[in-house]
Amino acid sequence: MVARNPQMARLKAGYLFPEINKRKRAFMEKNPDVKLISLGIGDTTQPLDKHITYSLTQASFGLGTPEGYSGYGPEQGKAILRERIAEKLYQNKIHSDDIFISDGSKCDLGRLQMLFGSNVSIAVQDPVYPVYVDTSIIMGQQEIVYMKCLPENHFFPDLHELKRTDLIYFCSPNNPTGATATRSQLEQLVSFAKKNNSLLIFDAAYSMYIQDPSIPKTIYEIPGADEVAIELGSFSKMAGFTGVRLGWTVCPAKLEFDDGTSVKRDWDRIVSTCFNGASNIAQLGGIGALDDMGMEEMRGMVSNYLGNARKLRETFLELGYPVVGGDNAPYVWVDFGRPSWEVFENLLYGAHILATPGAGFGSAGETFMRFSSFNSLKNTEEAAVRLKKYLKQGVESVSATV
Amino acid sequence: MVARNPQMARLKAGYLFPEINKRKRAFMEKNPDVKLISLGIGDTTQPLDKHITYSLTQASFGLGTPEGYSGYGPEQGKAILRERIAEKLYQNKIHSDDIFISDGSKCDLGRLQMLFGSNVSIAVQDPVYPVYVDTSIIMGQQEIVYMKCLPENHFFPDLHELKRTDLIYFCSPNNPTGATATRSQLEQLVSFAKKNNSLLIFDAAYSMYIQDPSIPKTIYEIPGADEVAIELGSFSKMAGFTGVRLGWTVCPAKLEFDDGTSVKRDWDRIVSTCFNGASNIAQLGGIGALDDMGMEEMRGMVSNYLGNARKLRETFLELGYPVVGGDNAPYVWVDFGRPSWEVFENLLYGAHILATPGAGFGSAGETFMRFSSFNSLKNTEEAAVRLKKYLKQGVESVSATV
Repeated sequence: MVARNPQMARLKAGYLFPEINKRKRAFMEKNPDVKLISLGIGDTTQPLDKHITYSLTQASFGLGTPEGYSGYGPEQGKAILRERIAEKLYQNKIHSDDIFISDGSKCDLGRLQMLFGSNVSIAVQDPVYPVYVDTSIIMGQQEIVYMKCLPENHFFPDLHELKRTDLIYFCSPNNPTGATATRSQLEQLVSFAKKNNSLLIFDAAYSMYIQDPSIPKTIYEIPGADEVAIELGSFSKMAGFTGVRLGWTVCPAKLEFDDGTSVKRDWDRIVSTCFNGASNIAQLGGIGALDDMGMEEMRGMVSNYLGNARKLRETFLELGYPVVGGDNAPYVWVDFGRPSWEVFENLLYGAHILATPGAGFGSAGETFMRFSSFNSLKNTEEAAVRLKKYLKQGVESVSATV
Repeated sequence: MVARNPQMARLKAGYLFPEINKRKRAFMEKNPDVKLISLGIGDTTQPLDKHITYSLTQASFGLGTPEGYSGYGPEQGKAILRERIAEKLYQNKIHSDDIFISDGSKCDLGRLQMLFGSNVSIAVQDPVYPVYVDTSIIMGQQEIVYMKCLPENHFFPDLHELKRTDLIYFCSPNNPTGATATRSQLEQLVSFAKKNNSLLIFDAAYSMYIQDPSIPKTIYEIPGADEVAIELGSFSKMAGFTGVRLGWTVCPAKLEFDDGTSVKRDWDRIVSTCFNGASNIAQLGGIGALDDMGMEEMRGMVSNYLGNARKLRETFLELGYPVVGGDNAPYVWVDFGRPSWEVFENLLYGAHILATPGAGFGSAGETFMRFSSFNSLKNTEEAAVRLKKYLKQGVESVSATV
């Protein structure tokens, strides 16, 4: 038969969330009556608000009418959606023609690997969203530099010690840590990329969660970033579209390869060849989400999840744990000072709470847990009560009873 | 800056349909008042029927309710959709667990390239859907064997002369020729793949158009195919979902690489890493399309488009042109005996009809045009009238007036 792709053998066994689900199922089989609260996977859980729901419903209904029917759209997305993103989220500082609509960032990350090919080196934050690394390995890239993000460097990499790579992945607000990079830090990052002729892939999927006006919501707030950075955006966490599937990638026309050819032209070719446009229904939903009523609904949804995030953040601060995130991000990153898979099991069996072990995001996450705010207020409050009770009585004594 | 991916430079400039659109725009600028009839791109044009529209609308509306809301689903798709495809389209001869739901075949073709990597050789039909070749080049694959499909071999490749490759792409009903492979031909193909330890990628996107009961609708009708073949399926042309985005890939558990590892396990890893599930709305629409009412609506839609296809087929036969397709496929493939881009311009300027030049699908299509039936009956009838008038008076004389 055909030879196996040798890159596939280089992948570590088991993606993080399938492993969590396996352990969750094992728990539920032993404890079928327990009401588990999931603060695990970063997945929105609350129904959409009226206007955005109406936009999607109207789009679906329209497909049954001659006026509302549409087939293939441009692979790059509907012009009006690209324009609205440029206007509402980039204050027209980005040209709508540089915005490519997609079915989500995870899918675009796979396509970005095809764009750059197997010969590039990359740098990623550690801890890191596993998809950057896994898609890089699948593509056959050989060099991955890990930039440690820990409390001692305020979760921002030490750039003066950093080796030059072709690509630098950077996520702010960060998944999993919930840390946000300051303007000054992002200026250093852009300047580092320029100096080293590196290209920045800036993941801004959680930008809507930034409340502090001094923190940049997009890398393009930094002067000159449009010469070095691609940015990923997403409706998943700002509109509750994790299941609807809608995102975008900004690829500025100014980006060039070392031979002077246009990065955007190659990206356009990748998108036209390996993709066929995001669902027309999702796109019309996105257009609705970006009008005045939709923006208000999104802000309301984000505000609700952020309320949960603050609740979790305060709970852990009260309990005396070192905490980052939860103020301008939906994630709270808590240092337990011991192996995170062990903490995972303790919280699951002792407090009936599902959280994500930091070790799953890289070695710098070894002693941390990620808590997600994507739940109802009621469940989050109940989780806070359980956590306080369980962690106050001491993890050690309870874990002995598991 | 970063070096350009050398594979991107190997791609031929301009994908076929953008080039057609460019020429169409040039025509429309010169002739703004002309009513052009497009028999060009294979894109559905007619509104969805009631029940399928209702399924999509209900799914969208449901996202605004606690009961109907859903976030990330399994990357492999909703279990009930996979089960319904297995039952309704494969009579449960394929296990639902081997069916992976996607946002369409074009996207899955890109991901299949990531699965197999850069070291495999491939064979494709000529003429060929350009995406197989372009994604292969992007992935860095070096050897592409073209299997000529011409009237003299009844549009089926001469297998005894064919060089062994790792992968063989095969599309039936074929895009662009509209030719369908007989059971005996597909038996030869499966047996050829087995003998050569090749893996078959069978594109069955147009299977619903097969009316002749003797022609297999899936490669798995051929005994032993589940040991050598992956199959691509799509809701685009059977449910009118070109814009909604929904398809699937069958990767049977029996498929193995030469080291005995499972192809399906690697495919599952690719799908979990580079993809995040098809839109939940599209999937619920697909579930509706596969119940009894939905199946009836799909059969009705296919029957309408096939009526158009037969109309076009008969028109060209009457005019004395060699024709294939249009009986069990939505495409009619007509030999004009002269350069197809020239015929394209003639039909555009002389009959105000947009068709697809066969040269765009490969050298074996050089003198052919593809006519698509994805239009209304009214437009198709009008196109037939125009074609008869224009082609009877002789292309040569008219082209002189362009």
